Amino acid sequence: MLENSNRRKFIKDAAITGAAFSVMSTPMKVFAAEKKSTVRIGMIATGFRGQSHLGEMLKRNDVEVIAMADPDKRMMAMAQKLVAEHGKKAPVEYTNGDYDYRNLLKRTDIDAVIVASPWQWHRDHGIDAMNAGKIVGMEVCGAIHLQDCWDFVNTYEKTKVPIMMMENVCYRRDVMAVLNMVQKGLFGDLLHLQGGYEHDLRGVLFNDGTPNAGPGVEFGDKGFSEAHWRTVHHQKRNGELYPTHGLGPVATMIDLNRGNRLTALSSVSTKSMGLNRYVANSPYGGPDHPNAKIHYKLGDVVSTQIQTTNGQTILLTHDTSSPRPYNLGFRVQGTNGLWMDYSGGGFDKGHIYIDGKSPDDAWESPQKWLEEYDHPLWKRYSKEAEGAGHGGMDYFVDNAFIESIKRDRPFPLDVYDLATWYAITPLSEKSIAEGGTLQRIPDFTNGKWRTRKPVFGLSDEY
Amino acid sequence: MLENSNRRKFIKDAAITGAAFSVMSTPMKVFAAEKKSTVRIGMIATGFRGQSHLGEMLKRNDVEVIAMADPDKRMMAMAQKLVAEHGKKAPVEYTNGDYDYRNLLKRTDIDAVIVASPWQWHRDHGIDAMNAGKIVGMEVCGAIHLQDCWDFVNTYEKTKVPIMMMENVCYRRDVMAVLNMVQKGLFGDLLHLQGGYEHDLRGVLFNDGTPNAGPGVEFGDKGFSEAHWRTVHHQKRNGELYPTHGLGPVATMIDLNRGNRLTALSSVSTKSMGLNRYVANSPYGGPDHPNAKIHYKLGDVVSTQIQTTNGQTILLTHDTSSPRPYNLGFRVQGTNGLWMDYSGGGFDKGHIYIDGKSPDDAWESPQKWLEEYDHPLWKRYSKEAEGAGHGGMDYFVDNAFIESIKRDRPFPLDVYDLATWYAITPLSEKSIAEGGTLQRIPDFTNGKWRTRKPVFGLSDEY
Repeated sequence: MLENSNRRKFIKDAAITGAAFSVMSTPMKVFAAEKKSTVRIGMIATGFRGQSHLGEMLKRNDVEVIAMADPDKRMMAMAQKLVAEHGKKAPVEYTNGDYDYRNLLKRTDIDAVIVASPWQWHRDHGIDAMNAGKIVGMEVCGAIHLQDCWDFVNTYEKTKVPIMMMENVCYRRDVMAVLNMVQKGLFGDLLHLQGGYEHDLRGVLFNDGTPNAGPGVEFGDKGFSEAHWRTVHHQKRNGELYPTHGLGPVATMIDLNRGNRLTALSSVSTKSMGLNRYVANSPYGGPDHPNAKIHYKLGDVVSTQIQTTNGQTILLTHDTSSPRPYNLGFRVQGTNGLWMDYSGGGFDKGHIYIDGKSPDDAWESPQKWLEEYDHPLWKRYSKEAEGAGHGGMDYFVDNAFIESIKRDRPFPLDVYDLATWYAITPLSEKSIAEGGTLQRIPDFTNGKWRTRKPVFGLSDEY
Repeated sequence: MLENSNRRKFIKDAAITGAAFSVMSTPMKVFAAEKKSTVRIGMIATGFRGQSHLGEMLKRNDVEVIAMADPDKRMMAMAQKLVAEHGKKAPVEYTNGDYDYRNLLKRTDIDAVIVASPWQWHRDHGIDAMNAGKIVGMEVCGAIHLQDCWDFVNTYEKTKVPIMMMENVCYRRDVMAVLNMVQKGLFGDLLHLQGGYEHDLRGVLFNDGTPNAGPGVEFGDKGFSEAHWRTVHHQKRNGELYPTHGLGPVATMIDLNRGNRLTALSSVSTKSMGLNRYVANSPYGGPDHPNAKIHYKLGDVVSTQIQTTNGQTILLTHDTSSPRPYNLGFRVQGTNGLWMDYSGGGFDKGHIYIDGKSPDDAWESPQKWLEEYDHPLWKRYSKEAEGAGHGGMDYFVDNAFIESIKRDRPFPLDVYDLATWYAITPLSEKSIAEGGTLQRIPDFTNGKWRTRKPVFGLSDEY
């Protein structure tokens, strides 16, 4: 990050001057007063995704990375190397098996942890952290069991330790520009939304097991990084395994859990052919390779229809086993127009129509619209975001996490969002297992959705 | 149509020379022998859609339009005018109320009828015709009741009088090129398909009731043409009201009812806002106009998930009450690639990716692919199709109807297709009424789908 030293100085001053702030008259944007000027971080899991968050933390002067836990010593070494490259002090390591993270959580010099572990660990890592009084930044995935979602909510309500749902795509530049247009009413009342995870992961799900993750057809014990743990979910589960990239961005547009809530879903899946075919056709595998013959339970395309109390429908698509260009497949449609994308976030990679402004019955490129309605947050911090992961959006999600903690303010994406979004996965698995039946989606807010107010993307602050 | 006189002469000769044909050695494409050289047609309903079919019939030298039935004398006058413009003999009129068509059906000089009536009449018109021994060309829609679908099948099986499902979009040029690519295996095994009817119909659903259908906000008794009868379906029903434009084209690609069948669906709908909003905002209406205040039951966007025995999923979208560009929203995805469209059939209006041939992880314009794989039928008859309705595809569907009758060969889209596609509507209504529940789709072939062979789009014949 190119540090904006003036802004940082201003924040530090603000933390010192405190309450005087409210009566200051200044043309500058006034930040909420900081309760702390430095956030002390522990990393739980230092795989590639954890290292990406770590990189964002290391760029900042308001964060100290105190400790890191991961049983994989190769990943830990990479993480330490990254720390050294930033000239920061080496964090304390916790690498003594799967549960050494609990010793990290016992430390009294850590304010918050970032959890970027394999999916099956999210529940324990997040809940143990909250119980230890550590604020949590939780990476995306779907829950293993529906009860996990309740466990997150109940633990939060018991401990009052906040947990943020670190959904970076909510901060994608085109998505935030469309959110801005939604908030300004250009689409009218929202009706139908689509999103998904349409990403050819075959080269991620299989590799040769070496730390450089060379091409190969191995997974599980013989695989490295995501091939080591992610592929087995594709082998043993059939459902919308990765709902939040598609759902999160549209959830903020329809004020989910803040005046609106999800009520029910049904999911269907195609047959499963892609992973077998990949291994069978690979020069590293072949039709007789064991991984070409095992059964991968996950259907190649999983579709999920979701309904909301406010009368919207949402379609999610999970499509990761087939050759295809990357596309999260957003569609945001209201009574006054619609936007669709077909790629990875480029302003020109989509179609838009706004009634009365677009030419009659004709798509426009979204380019000029998204430039005109570029979100204030992106306008302000696009320079800081340069070079951050996933086209810059990782900067924003990590920044929101840290700035919220410094101000002791509610996270823009909180435990109820996490529980609701994570719940899609086990509910979709149940729906598919039952042939596509309707599944009720619990109200994790226990009625609070009726009065909670929207908070995401309302200003240029963070 | 630019008549291909050589081809027509050849057909007539063929009908005369008969069996000698099979031993002829000729570089020309040999047609199956004709059983009759002229088809005598009765029109049931002469509204705008009926007039479009009538226009195709009038261009042909192998068709005689004998009689026409419609209680609407204005539409009948337009149809007679069209006949006169083509210099053909005026067909006998049946305009004496809703049931005068039964007198048309009593005629012994008619081989077949084309039914293009309001949806609620399709069942009676079609079944009465079959019972009267008249071959039927049936326009698209969805059934009013599920039993209607069984009535079509049972009547066909009792009478053996064939009925063709006149789904013109099955013959759209880009759709047929993609079908050709599917048949040649370029997409691999098909997995997931999408289609729909995303067409802003507001200006069709409301008008001023005059025969020129000027702008207005009236429907029902005060409306003209589709506003006279179609809008009430939007007022009183909530479901996938118009499934065949989206489903038909992909049904031929997955060999539906011919080695494959639909098993179940579930539908969801958004709230209904578009039609009220349209009337309220119209200079011809306003917020106090009665049609701005009544309840239109149809949700603005209706989504339907369908499953097949062969492990594919199909998503249909019905979206006709909102401002938007026209789009049937096709997606054809297999293990080896996918095609998506976003417009009305232009070869360049979409995205395609074929594994190993397209650049890695990048969409291509479908243009060169669809040109290369232009369907033999279109290659051969594109000149004849010029000027026909809906970009030429109406020529092909009408031509298939007539040529099949002349040869006494099975229709490429038959009663089982009709019943299966029509059934989507009542089943989706039931699903939505029950909150989105799963509905089993009957096997209208009673097991014959297992052995029936694909017939659609296999040659350049018709």
